[in-house]
Amino acid sequence: MSMRITFLGTAASIPTAARALSAVAIQRKGELFLFDCGEGTQRQMIQAKLGFNRKTRIFITHKHGDHILGLPGLLQTMSLLGRDKPLQIYGPKGTADFLEAMIITVEFSLRFPVEVCEIENEGLVLNEQEYEVHSAWAEHSIPSLAYALIEKPRPGKFHPERALALGVPKGSLWHRLQEGKAVKVSDEQIVRPDDVMDPPRPGRKIVIVGDTKPSDKIAKFACNADILIHEATFAEDLAERAAKDLHSTPTGAALVAKKAGAKLLVLTHISARYGDPAILLEEAKNVFPHVIVAEDLMRIDVPLKD
Amino acid sequence: MSMRITFLGTAASIPTAARALSAVAIQRKGELFLFDCGEGTQRQMIQAKLGFNRKTRIFITHKHGDHILGLPGLLQTMSLLGRDKPLQIYGPKGTADFLEAMIITVEFSLRFPVEVCEIENEGLVLNEQEYEVHSAWAEHSIPSLAYALIEKPRPGKFHPERALALGVPKGSLWHRLQEGKAVKVSDEQIVRPDDVMDPPRPGRKIVIVGDTKPSDKIAKFACNADILIHEATFAEDLAERAAKDLHSTPTGAALVAKKAGAKLLVLTHISARYGDPAILLEEAKNVFPHVIVAEDLMRIDVPLKD
Repeated sequence: MSMRITFLGTAASIPTAARALSAVAIQRKGELFLFDCGEGTQRQMIQAKLGFNRKTRIFITHKHGDHILGLPGLLQTMSLLGRDKPLQIYGPKGTADFLEAMIITVEFSLRFPVEVCEIENEGLVLNEQEYEVHSAWAEHSIPSLAYALIEKPRPGKFHPERALALGVPKGSLWHRLQEGKAVKVSDEQIVRPDDVMDPPRPGRKIVIVGDTKPSDKIAKFACNADILIHEATFAEDLAERAAKDLHSTPTGAALVAKKAGAKLLVLTHISARYGDPAILLEEAKNVFPHVIVAEDLMRIDVPLKD
Repeated sequence: MSMRITFLGTAASIPTAARALSAVAIQRKGELFLFDCGEGTQRQMIQAKLGFNRKTRIFITHKHGDHILGLPGLLQTMSLLGRDKPLQIYGPKGTADFLEAMIITVEFSLRFPVEVCEIENEGLVLNEQEYEVHSAWAEHSIPSLAYALIEKPRPGKFHPERALALGVPKGSLWHRLQEGKAVKVSDEQIVRPDDVMDPPRPGRKIVIVGDTKPSDKIAKFACNADILIHEATFAEDLAERAAKDLHSTPTGAALVAKKAGAKLLVLTHISARYGDPAILLEEAKNVFPHVIVAEDLMRIDVPLKD
C-alpha cells in the first residue's frame, strides 16, 4: 500500500524561482494529507497532478503568511472544479477567523462543506481505523504545531498452509482469522489468529515540523519516525539569527533527528539565500548521516514495513 | 525611453502548469505599474526580475480571488525584503477591507506605508507630470474596472541649427525652449518653442481590461490604444457560457479592438481548457488581424512614438 510524500513548496518566507512557499502533500490509499498551504500551493498541486476532489485533510502548522496564504485560492479552485466532498482543515487558533475574513472580503462562493478544527491543546487530532494524527507544540515566535501521521500496526502475514494443517478450510473462516478473530473448527479445537499469522507489522510514522527552533520536545514527538520533515532555514553561520527568530539550522535539525532516532531527515523551509543547498546538507551530515534537502516536487515513496 | 509590458499571469480563474493567475506589469522610467495581483504574482515577479523596492502602483480591476489573492503575500515579501518606499493600491470598493482583514487575521507586520485608494467613480485616477491613469467600468458580474495608462505628449524634436540661426546660444536658453518656454534674444526678438521644435509627439496609451463581456463603452475607453490587453476567457463554441458569466470570446475582444482602432490586441485570461491557444488566436484574427495571445513572462517593449 503506497504512501507518497510530495514536497510542493520548500522555501522559507519568500519564494524563489526554484522554490514555492511551504506545503507538503502525503497520499495514502486515495486520501490526501496536506501540511501547510503557502501561496502557490494550488499550482504546485496541479504540477504534481494531485487532484482537487479526493478525500483531503489540511493541517496548518502556524499562521505566518508563507504557510497559509495559499488556502483561499485552493478552496476557490476546488469550488470552481466542482468539488463536492467535505474538506477538513486543522490548525491553531485563528485559522477559522482567517478563512472567514477571506470569504467575507473576497467575492468568493464556497460550494462544498469546509470543517475547520482549531487545535488548542496538543495531542491526538484524529483517530481513524488505520492511522492517527497527533500534534505537538513546536517552539516558534507564534504558536506553531508539529504533526505526526502514525499508521496503526497492520496484521502479520497469514500462512494458508498452517490454517489448512489446523483444519480451517479456505473461505470465510480464513477471513475471520485475518480480521483477528478466533474460529472454532470442531468441538474440541479453536484456532486463534496467532496460530496462522505472524505478529502484527508496524505502521509508518511521518513527522512534519513547521517553523521551530530545535526542540527536545519535538525530538520525543518524532521518536522513531520513518521520516522527519524539519525546517532548516539558515546555515550555521547564521545560527544567531536562527536562534533570535526561533528557526533551526541544519545542525539543530540533525540533532533533533538523532535524538528522535529517525530513519530519514528531510530538510525544508530553505532560505532564499541558498541557491545551492549543498552547505545545508553538509552541515546536517556532520551530525546525522541519513539526511536529504527537499526540492520542489521531489517525491518520496515510503515502503510498507515488515 | 523604454516602456516594457510583462505578462506575469495569463490564466483565468484557475492556474495551470503554464499559466499563473492574473497580473500584468508595466515598467516605465524606473516605475512599476502592476495591474491585478492573482495568487503567485510575487513569484512571477521574481522570475521576471522586476524587484520589490521600486516606485510601484498596483491597480486592481475587481475583487475576484484570481485577481487579488496575491496581494497579501506580495506585501509581506516587500516587507521582509526591507521595502521602505510607500506603495499605492487602487481598486474598487472593498479593496481596503480585504487588505485590513488579511493584516488582522494573518500574523503579518507591514513595514512600509500602503495607501489604498478605492475608486467609486470612473474617470481620472492619477495625473502625474508625464502620464495619467484613467479608469472605466467594464461589464462583469461584480464591479470591474478597466484602466488606461496614457502618456502626455512629449516635446517635439529640437533643432539646434534653427536655434542658432535665430540667435539663441547653446546653453540654458535652449533648455528653456525645450521646456516649452519662449526666450527673449534681443529687445526686438522673442523666440518661441515652435520656432525651433517640431510639434509635440504623442504619448503611448496602454489599456488593461479585467474581466468583462465585450463592451462598446470599453471600446471608446480604449480609443486609439497602442496596446489593448483584453480578456478572452472562452472560445466561440462556449459563447453562451461567456455571455452568461459576463466574459469575452476572442471574437468579442477583437470587435472591441476594431471599434477602438487599437494598434495591437493582446488576449489574456485564458481558460485552463486551452492548452494550445491556437483556436483563440484564429478566431480573433478573423475579426482583427493585429492580435496575439499572451503567455506567462512574455514581454512587449512599446517604442516611443514619433
